[in-house]
Amino acid sequence: MIRRYVYGKVMETEAIMEKPQCQEGTIPYFTVDEEKMSFSFSMEESDRVYGLGENVRGINKRGWIYESKCSDDPNHLEDRRSLYGAHNFIVVDGKVQFGVFVDYPGILTFDVGYTRHSELKITASDWNLDVYVIEGEDVKDIVKQFRGLIGRSYIAPLWAFGYGQSRWSYMTADEVRDVVKKHRELGIPLDSVYLDIDYMERYKDFTLNDETFPDFAEFNKEMKEQNIHLVPIIDAGVKQEEGYPVYEEGLEKGYFCKKEDGTPFVAAVWPGKALFPDMLNKEARDWFGDQYKFLLDQGVEGFWNDMNEPAIFYTEDRLKDVLEKLDTFKGKNLDLNRFWEFTGLVSGLSNNVEDYKMFYHNINGEKVRHDRVHNLFGYNMTRAAGEAFERLEPDKRILMFSRSSYVGMHRYGGIWQGDNKSWWSHILLNLKMMPSLNMCGFIYTGADLGGFGSDTTEDLVLRWLALGIFTPLMRNHSAMGTRVQEVYRFENMDGFRHIIGLRYRFLPYLYSEYMKAVLRDEMMFRPLAFDYPQDSHAVNVEDQLLLGDGLMIAPVYEQNAEGRYVYLPEKMKMVRFKVDGTTEEEILEAGHHYVNISLTDVVVFVRPNHLIPMSSGGQCVEDVDFENLQYISYIDNGEAVYEYYHDNGYEKDYENPEHIRVIRM
Amino acid sequence: MIRRYVYGKVMETEAIMEKPQCQEGTIPYFTVDEEKMSFSFSMEESDRVYGLGENVRGINKRGWIYESKCSDDPNHLEDRRSLYGAHNFIVVDGKVQFGVFVDYPGILTFDVGYTRHSELKITASDWNLDVYVIEGEDVKDIVKQFRGLIGRSYIAPLWAFGYGQSRWSYMTADEVRDVVKKHRELGIPLDSVYLDIDYMERYKDFTLNDETFPDFAEFNKEMKEQNIHLVPIIDAGVKQEEGYPVYEEGLEKGYFCKKEDGTPFVAAVWPGKALFPDMLNKEARDWFGDQYKFLLDQGVEGFWNDMNEPAIFYTEDRLKDVLEKLDTFKGKNLDLNRFWEFTGLVSGLSNNVEDYKMFYHNINGEKVRHDRVHNLFGYNMTRAAGEAFERLEPDKRILMFSRSSYVGMHRYGGIWQGDNKSWWSHILLNLKMMPSLNMCGFIYTGADLGGFGSDTTEDLVLRWLALGIFTPLMRNHSAMGTRVQEVYRFENMDGFRHIIGLRYRFLPYLYSEYMKAVLRDEMMFRPLAFDYPQDSHAVNVEDQLLLGDGLMIAPVYEQNAEGRYVYLPEKMKMVRFKVDGTTEEEILEAGHHYVNISLTDVVVFVRPNHLIPMSSGGQCVEDVDFENLQYISYIDNGEAVYEYYHDNGYEKDYENPEHIRVIRM
Repeated sequence: MIRRYVYGKVMETEAIMEKPQCQEGTIPYFTVDEEKMSFSFSMEESDRVYGLGENVRGINKRGWIYESKCSDDPNHLEDRRSLYGAHNFIVVDGKVQFGVFVDYPGILTFDVGYTRHSELKITASDWNLDVYVIEGEDVKDIVKQFRGLIGRSYIAPLWAFGYGQSRWSYMTADEVRDVVKKHRELGIPLDSVYLDIDYMERYKDFTLNDETFPDFAEFNKEMKEQNIHLVPIIDAGVKQEEGYPVYEEGLEKGYFCKKEDGTPFVAAVWPGKALFPDMLNKEARDWFGDQYKFLLDQGVEGFWNDMNEPAIFYTEDRLKDVLEKLDTFKGKNLDLNRFWEFTGLVSGLSNNVEDYKMFYHNINGEKVRHDRVHNLFGYNMTRAAGEAFERLEPDKRILMFSRSSYVGMHRYGGIWQGDNKSWWSHILLNLKMMPSLNMCGFIYTGADLGGFGSDTTEDLVLRWLALGIFTPLMRNHSAMGTRVQEVYRFENMDGFRHIIGLRYRFLPYLYSEYMKAVLRDEMMFRPLAFDYPQDSHAVNVEDQLLLGDGLMIAPVYEQNAEGRYVYLPEKMKMVRFKVDGTTEEEILEAGHHYVNISLTDVVVFVRPNHLIPMSSGGQCVEDVDFENLQYISYIDNGEAVYEYYHDNGYEKDYENPEHIRVIRM
Repeated sequence: MIRRYVYGKVMETEAIMEKPQCQEGTIPYFTVDEEKMSFSFSMEESDRVYGLGENVRGINKRGWIYESKCSDDPNHLEDRRSLYGAHNFIVVDGKVQFGVFVDYPGILTFDVGYTRHSELKITASDWNLDVYVIEGEDVKDIVKQFRGLIGRSYIAPLWAFGYGQSRWSYMTADEVRDVVKKHRELGIPLDSVYLDIDYMERYKDFTLNDETFPDFAEFNKEMKEQNIHLVPIIDAGVKQEEGYPVYEEGLEKGYFCKKEDGTPFVAAVWPGKALFPDMLNKEARDWFGDQYKFLLDQGVEGFWNDMNEPAIFYTEDRLKDVLEKLDTFKGKNLDLNRFWEFTGLVSGLSNNVEDYKMFYHNINGEKVRHDRVHNLFGYNMTRAAGEAFERLEPDKRILMFSRSSYVGMHRYGGIWQGDNKSWWSHILLNLKMMPSLNMCGFIYTGADLGGFGSDTTEDLVLRWLALGIFTPLMRNHSAMGTRVQEVYRFENMDGFRHIIGLRYRFLPYLYSEYMKAVLRDEMMFRPLAFDYPQDSHAVNVEDQLLLGDGLMIAPVYEQNAEGRYVYLPEKMKMVRFKVDGTTEEEILEAGHHYVNISLTDVVVFVRPNHLIPMSSGGQCVEDVDFENLQYISYIDNGEAVYEYYHDNGYEKDYENPEHIRVIRM
């Protein structure tokens, strides 16, 4: 049951498609403090709290304070409160069970036992919000109801389930050709190469650098003939440059965000000074979406939207101020306070919260200051694209994923988990975010495998890939200035070929589970707690996940480890895929196990009376035979039944019952 | 067996007291590339590499690249290569076993399978170094030989094994009184309060703020009457201020580091512009050491030396340059490159490696540029103090620990593990550094419990204390601007009282094991690999330690965990100390176990036929009865024998055989 409570005058986010009538009376579970703009719930010692989508820390969010404030912060550390998304949905699971979604586009705080161990407190920045309280049979049911409320998640094309290679940046078409050639020569499967900002002409959206990527349509075709999709990045900021049509047209039509005085808001991002299309203004959004046509027309079938928190390197006005202030420091014997002031001025140039108060949106004619709706910007940039794809390419699935997001954006695209690092701890963070994101509707997601920032190591890439082969988005991406990390840069080619090859063998199951999760409002990745709520150990497991109904995964995430502990809430079959191509199976009893997992082993656990359809693999998704299936299975005194979803991966007749086949064993 | 190889003209570090004759012929195990100034060893797949003292990552250092370069970096992340110390000792353990110590005061790189998984490569910055290769019966023997080579470790006074409370900063004597009062009222044991930089008059070493800490000697006496030791901080930089005697005298005598032109090198640290005593010049070192008398005379018996990498906020010259350069940015439309240049100039003001090339030491009359001997600075600051204490207070043990260090400094003081964070991952880093530091002679050590930077949580403090009660230095410390974390700020007073109280119950064993480790050149904390080298699982355990001969510890380091996995290489007795004061014992078989450990439980594992002497506790070390002992023990078909070391904790007759008593059970 979903109940809606309205406080103040709600700013429309369109996160929810059909809103239930709002309730009279007081909200259950919470104590409301209107003055402090907060809702408090008193937690029992054993209560767990799930949700919040893309954020730091555990699957169980208890013990920290989180802020919904879309932030461009590349240091995904335990002490951060926000990442790129704002996903205001939690489920409390313990003595009582309920979900809460706070539909609110400003900054919102979730203190989940941080200030006081026993108190959950949600605090808004102003008192205009919609709150949904959801009760159900169990946590899965509560999530399903919430997912029903927010509408069907975005569906990616099948090719986007292949392995993708990225780098900030492949600087020329020849570099891309070389990446593809090396993978093909080594027999490492590959389906896409991502183009980071340098494919553009001086970082101008919807342009191409003609010198480094000449005749792009032809190049794109050449790549497609090799079953490679090129996936260019699109940034939120539009370069301020006379003669650049996107800038000129947007300016002329008044589509950019404006300062209070009505002049355009200018801030520097990759291209230097840039303007921000008013993604919250329907007309501007439509116009921005139409720009993708430039690349669609060259045969591009996938995009990633970046910098859309929006990230700001500096604003014109603040930089001017700072440079003037810096003048006053010259020739002085700066004491420490003055020195900190000085360095603070400079470090405060980027993503300054005060800058988010300096520009305005035009929402249905109403002038709204950005900070009030900050968390909707990336969402609506991606919505601009998603809506445009429906207009421009109604019969095609276009790959789209975004950095910033809000609930609602899940209908238009996936997300990647942002600019992580080559840290072992980020394998685990990748894993932990999967179910939290699934709860909030983000099913097409994954992290930059091998790590984006910092220098990686060969063993880190191997171990991370052994998780990444299970996430819908499987992409190896790394930042300029860091150690190169295409797998062919390392030595263990047999290992890489084996692990990435397994992705293609698992594709029938992965795609089927992905589609069912989307179409049925279910979670592709679930914590053990959701399926084994009565198991007092399982409910606290933070480093294993259920993947669909049949599989449990438990990747290794520690350097030099020869294996890991795995908890089995019930008897399962462990299947080990070895680098020599052989497979070993072993039935393990319920309970705790230490499992040896070598650097090139991939180990999965099959639940009783389940079967996992697999293919014989391929060098690209196109090669994969989704019809003649192989299986791994664990039949324990019964029958295994699997509902196998498959469609052609490109059309949109998702609901066609012919896509489902029941397999019995 | 220790063999010494000399390359080039060695810069004397005095890390080693009596150097063996140097060997003719080529160094074993390694391939030397003189041109690249490197030593390479080819690792087997199963080789492990231990050592490097204070650094990031695992007990097994394999899979990363480390730099010996004393660095003031508060972000102790996986991707860092250096922390505050330079500890150039490693042991390779696998098909072959040997130790290597590279006695070299400049920047040295240890690539332990980072670039290539199978290659260990040590690279120096110039070709003037002493290399010691050590072979022995096993890893423990190799370490013991190395420890013999570098001389006996510093010994702390007994009171310094009590619980210490710190904050940057307690601003007044009354604040300190309040801290003490709250602990005493709540029955939380306490032995010391640390004074961070604000006790001084405007951050001037060897001064006192008379307004906030009036009549310090009297205050110190008042505290001692409550069994509280005040432990002030001393910084490496001496404020440039006319009329300040330390500055005036040092300048007059030419004791500060100088620029190439002979004028003093000036850099800003806490007091603003400051000069650095030339710790490598014996005369200057003696002079600086004598300054501690000012505080010794007020009754102070302990110090911590900080900022001695040395940390530099900015140099006078660089700041001037930067401010001038910033002028050229005014009124410009900065493109990104120019913007990064701009922010890079400012962020590069602090701890800039170029600044370490701008000043010189006078070493026995030779002018030596700082970067060549960078890693010796903190070492010699602490040596200044240690040598002075021997002159000024020959009969007393003075507490001394430092932030920066090099092997050799272990004879003069301990270290704390630097400015960590309130991160769960730093509980584990704390644990992992203990044996690595012990290998290098640093026995009196510990981390800032609860975390220095970032905001802590109650559960993090509880869990961290449950490790910290076992480390010689047990101090709760946190940074200005972060959440306060004295234990009385939280709710679970029974839990804190219980856990900290246990420290005092374990003191007989801890102090005895500490003293034996020091006097016998052994390790107080050892990885399981060192004691169970034949156990293929034990050798990879990274989150448990042996503490002395009888105990194994396995703290919980994950939020919301209800326990953890523990591996027992042999049958042991698990002893659980519960918050209600009761103790539960259980014999566990060798192998893997999941052990439930509530937030207030402390669990230890006793090895077979060992006994652990304990006391009945106390509110301060002075209260603890080290004579009438209680025991936990595990007698398994035999007799337990314990060599109990105890002295009065203040005198220096360490070798007196009366301090050892053999207890049989």
